[in-house]
Amino acid sequence: MTTASDTIPHPARAELELAAVLHALSDAHRLRIVAGLAAGIDPRTCGSFTLPVTKSTCTHHFKVLREAGVIRQRQEGTARLNTLRREDLDARFPGLLDSILASAAAA
Amino acid sequence: MTTASDTIPHPARAELELAAVLHALSDAHRLRIVAGLAAGIDPRTCGSFTLPVTKSTCTHHFKVLREAGVIRQRQEGTARLNTLRREDLDARFPGLLDSILASAAAA
Repeated sequence: MTTASDTIPHPARAELELAAVLHALSDAHRLRIVAGLAAGIDPRTCGSFTLPVTKSTCTHHFKVLREAGVIRQRQEGTARLNTLRREDLDARFPGLLDSILASAAAA
Repeated sequence: MTTASDTIPHPARAELELAAVLHALSDAHRLRIVAGLAAGIDPRTCGSFTLPVTKSTCTHHFKVLREAGVIRQRQEGTARLNTLRREDLDARFPGLLDSILASAAAA
């Protein structure tokens, strides 16, 4: 059965590209989102982040992160839940996410 | 004495911003430039890189890298020489450059 959540496209691990991942992380708001996801274990909705941007801009940031393979999104009813693709990122780009999160935390 | 090379603006180490550095590295050509600079010890000119782009695009890529603090540029006669700001990057963002270079090399 195909559900709505199946239709959200995600690149496979082997398809992740370094330049695209770095681009997705090259924005202060998106860095905050990723740091927030990395700090917890539960999926989070866009609205759970208190970013000084409109809802549509927030949605855009999550889309950029998903399309680069940084996060995974799934639909549950009216909520779109987001999780960090840490295992995929660590497998493809060892040490990259940790160094970026550490640098973001120190900023 | 103020020379032409003094007028090329560079951010100080303390001014380097993670998002700007990641943006500068979020392009396949700029990743190649940085990998090339990291692999050698000598300053290199824009023209020493065989990138499939026009000279003006190459100049643009170096400007983006310089403005983000990834490289240092100095003018010697008609040549603009480029070096990687490895010490500054390693001091501000420990492990970041190495993880990016390793990921770029593995791609």
